[in-house]
Amino acid sequence: MTIRVTVWGENVHEHKSDVVKKVYPDLMHGTIAAALNRENGIEATTATLQEPEHGLTKERLAQTDVLTWWGHAAHGDVDDAIAERVCEAVWGGMGIIFLHSAHFSKPFKRLMGTPCNLYWREAGERERIWTTSRNHPIAAGVPESFELVNEEMYGEPFGVPEPMETVFIGWFQGGEVFRSGLTWRRGAGNVFYFQPGHETYPTYHDANIQRVIANGVRWAYNPAKRIDDPTVAPNRPVDQAPEKITERGPKLHKAGEQGLR
Amino acid sequence: MTIRVTVWGENVHEHKSDVVKKVYPDLMHGTIAAALNRENGIEATTATLQEPEHGLTKERLAQTDVLTWWGHAAHGDVDDAIAERVCEAVWGGMGIIFLHSAHFSKPFKRLMGTPCNLYWREAGERERIWTTSRNHPIAAGVPESFELVNEEMYGEPFGVPEPMETVFIGWFQGGEVFRSGLTWRRGAGNVFYFQPGHETYPTYHDANIQRVIANGVRWAYNPAKRIDDPTVAPNRPVDQAPEKITERGPKLHKAGEQGLR
Amino acid sequence: MTIRVTVWGENVHEHKSDVVKKVYPDLMHGTIAAALNRENGIEATTATLQEPEHGLTKERLAQTDVLTWWGHAAHGDVDDAIAERVCEAVWGGMGIIFLHSAHFSKPFKRLMGTPCNLYWREAGERERIWTTSRNHPIAAGVPESFELVNEEMYGEPFGVPEPMETVFIGWFQGGEVFRSGLTWRRGAGNVFYFQPGHETYPTYHDANIQRVIANGVRWAYNPAKRIDDPTVAPNRPVDQAPEKITERGPKLHKAGEQGLR
Amino acid sequence: MTIRVTVWGENVHEHKSDVVKKVYPDLMHGTIAAALNRENGIEATTATLQEPEHGLTKERLAQTDVLTWWGHAAHGDVDDAIAERVCEAVWGGMGIIFLHSAHFSKPFKRLMGTPCNLYWREAGERERIWTTSRNHPIAAGVPESFELVNEEMYGEPFGVPEPMETVFIGWFQGGEVFRSGLTWRRGAGNVFYFQPGHETYPTYHDANIQRVIANGVRWAYNPAKRIDDPTVAPNRPVDQAPEKITERGPKLHKAGEQGLR
Repeated sequence: MTIRVTVWGENVHEHKSDVVKKVYPDLMHGTIAAALNRENGIEATTATLQEPEHGLTKERLAQTDVLTWWGHAAHGDVDDAIAERVCEAVWGGMGIIFLHSAHFSKPFKRLMGTPCNLYWREAGERERIWTTSRNHPIAAGVPESFELVNEEMYGEPFGVPEPMETVFIGWFQGGEVFRSGLTWRRGAGNVFYFQPGHETYPTYHDANIQRVIANGVRWAYNPAKRIDDPTVAPNRPVDQAPEKITERGPKLHKAGEQGLR
Repeated sequence: MTIRVTVWGENVHEHKSDVVKKVYPDLMHGTIAAALNRENGIEATTATLQEPEHGLTKERLAQTDVLTWWGHAAHGDVDDAIAERVCEAVWGGMGIIFLHSAHFSKPFKRLMGTPCNLYWREAGERERIWTTSRNHPIAAGVPESFELVNEEMYGEPFGVPEPMETVFIGWFQGGEVFRSGLTWRRGAGNVFYFQPGHETYPTYHDANIQRVIANGVRWAYNPAKRIDDPTVAPNRPVDQAPEKITERGPKLHKAGEQGLR
Repeated sequence: MTIRVTVWGENVHEHKSDVVKKVYPDLMHGTIAAALNRENGIEATTATLQEPEHGLTKERLAQTDVLTWWGHAAHGDVDDAIAERVCEAVWGGMGIIFLHSAHFSKPFKRLMGTPCNLYWREAGERERIWTTSRNHPIAAGVPESFELVNEEMYGEPFGVPEPMETVFIGWFQGGEVFRSGLTWRRGAGNVFYFQPGHETYPTYHDANIQRVIANGVRWAYNPAKRIDDPTVAPNRPVDQAPEKITERGPKLHKAGEQGLR
Repeated sequence: MTIRVTVWGENVHEHKSDVVKKVYPDLMHGTIAAALNRENGIEATTATLQEPEHGLTKERLAQTDVLTWWGHAAHGDVDDAIAERVCEAVWGGMGIIFLHSAHFSKPFKRLMGTPCNLYWREAGERERIWTTSRNHPIAAGVPESFELVNEEMYGEPFGVPEPMETVFIGWFQGGEVFRSGLTWRRGAGNVFYFQPGHETYPTYHDANIQRVIANGVRWAYNPAKRIDDPTVAPNRPVDQAPEKITERGPKLHKAGEQGLR
């Protein structure tokens, strides 16, 4: 069994910024996908903002077990309908991993229901990431703590709902802390947010980071058959009630009528 | 200290349906507000869909400690910008209580990040509501279980995120169950969903239901000063870092530049 | 890879009660283990109260990936030290599934930190179990609801901590509800409680029940290397601090001293 | 309405260590209680290990709305029966705040169901505490971050169950992080753990620390009538079932018999 991953990349700064170009000659999504393809049982392809429908057609999402999302400069250019389509896929069972500045992406904000804001500083300071949940599958094979020589500071308070589990917390040289690895479930879909990954630093070349993302993919993967319409609210009429009941009382709906939305 | 509650009513079926008119001659929001106004320390007023800005101007929300929301027939008529404004107030600290069919309202779906769907049946069957969290403030003064002679069936699975706490679970005569009372926190705002309240039944005249809603108001109330801009993501520059650091590494942002959103 | 399951049975009523003997001629733990052994990738053996160390030596636990626990008549006969040993194995990463009346077992109460009490009635009434978390791995292959013709009523409030996830809720013919399937994480160990299984009814012969238990085993399994001493609180001295610091301020402990417990 | 607080102190190091004596001439519990008594609506008294029944008789606990617990050197000297009595009071609705090294106290370990272990270092390093949950009542009046000049390092992973809410995270000069403020609910009782407070430093003289403890007391207070026997599991016989049912099927218990525990 192979987990099919689509690595989505905004694909903007790699072309505009010489710094980013140099760190990621294979583009950020290319680098992330290549690392995943070195894993057993994972098959990663890429999709970008610039492709038709951002590369995220209904068919593509239907064949994506886990989607990873990196964006920063162009969150606003993502089509609302496609962001909603991504969320529907998650509710139906697609796993999703939001990387770094994707905290402000449309699908993340939509799935969280909160502002997803934070403090930030681009100073190339040192970050040390600590595991808070011992032997959590997302932390498999990662030391109890590991360092990134340069990372953008993301600081608390992080405007997200209380997670299902806090897996990592980051320590920053400049004095801040951040819940760097958090999990949630939304519908049938598993959601993982992972903080490191500023585009001017070689974060996605780091072995520990690559390990966490691959672990995250395996954790987020839900092998159950995707739910086709995860938003439907079906009527269950009286004659299909599990226990025999007799209809009574005043009614608003006529028999067989659709519910109001 | 008085908790200022705005009871928001869609105010549609009370005028269109003779059944609803008869059960709620003072309108649904009027009935809910009247019950709250019989409580010590609560002052309730109403607002409706038909008022300019649905009665939910920025000023009105700023002076609302807790908002209750009932809607059913006209979820789609709620202006997107006003739904977002309500969510911003919640993130800033306003409490909010979603009643019954408000599970499909725009602000609830936005705050949950999930479809909020369920099974339903309008058959006037009996519901019995059980407290699952003993001595929870929202259950104060309510028996361990109580009955509603007629209620619309809402059945699991209920498409919401795992709650902070499950306070009530409903048993339906027709054989279904439903998590009838659930809490979440979104930003600085407390959120309570409470399932009973189909418009053709006298649910909001019931003493236990009124007790739960008043308890919910007290629980949801956050006395802290409202956060003015709960979505801002401030830069904290190097010279304001809590620990002395020296900027290093390649940069994307120029000094003083706004972050990308 | 095979998941090694130890099915622990109290093994008392099967010998004392003719009723139970007739329903479970192969004993309750024997029936549960046989069903698990029909699954791919699971290898189940049994252990009972009457064996030396209740069959749960340190070695046996070290080779157990997931333990299932059923007890009722003789919770008090379980040795405190062995209950604690089971908890230590859980903290180190062993999965555990508590079945039915094991809600009052020593390891469950110890892992929950709460009374774990409930209402009950032995009347052979009908139970219907609803899935509340769509496509949760523990609910794989199980219908959205299924019935048990006879089950002991367990009713809310159930005195457990808020779970990580509510997977099932039970509806009882007599009017009660119960959170029938709940998950928690304790240390590195996954914990699942599943309510059905009164010894006078053929619950463990039911295909849906067997499916849920097998799913629960797969969900609870943590492939990470077991943590040897999951209770140790190590000192990390100044010279091993990740950041260079100088010791200062008044001290209680001498260098190299063990921490107080 | 006045919240009655009992400040429990182990009361050992204040007498044995000259360092501690000098920092806390009024003893640690005395200092904490004095600060609470400067608050409106809080009335604090003290109890210590050395008093009969550690000062925690049934009567005393019955008149305690919120208990705060500090211990370090003598966790093992706390009588098991009294630790259990404290937990029963919590399950019945008493609030409890565990301070610093109380992470290894008997009642905390019992309520958590986990090892409650951590890394530690006594080097007088700087700690900075960050609020992670904006406008949480426990963080009222406390800056978004504040410093302690000297504190004992407590480092992740912290062996506790996933909390209801993470309110504070601590940053340590030596490079570690710690979830410094965490909440849980156990039965009807609210539980708050707060990390700062090593006995050789003047932590409990700090205004921010005092503010958090007073906030914690107000948050933990449950005004509901204490549940007398929070561990009882009552039988609800057939003739008291909410819905009319007829007893059927084989039985283990005779009518009126107590349940097994």
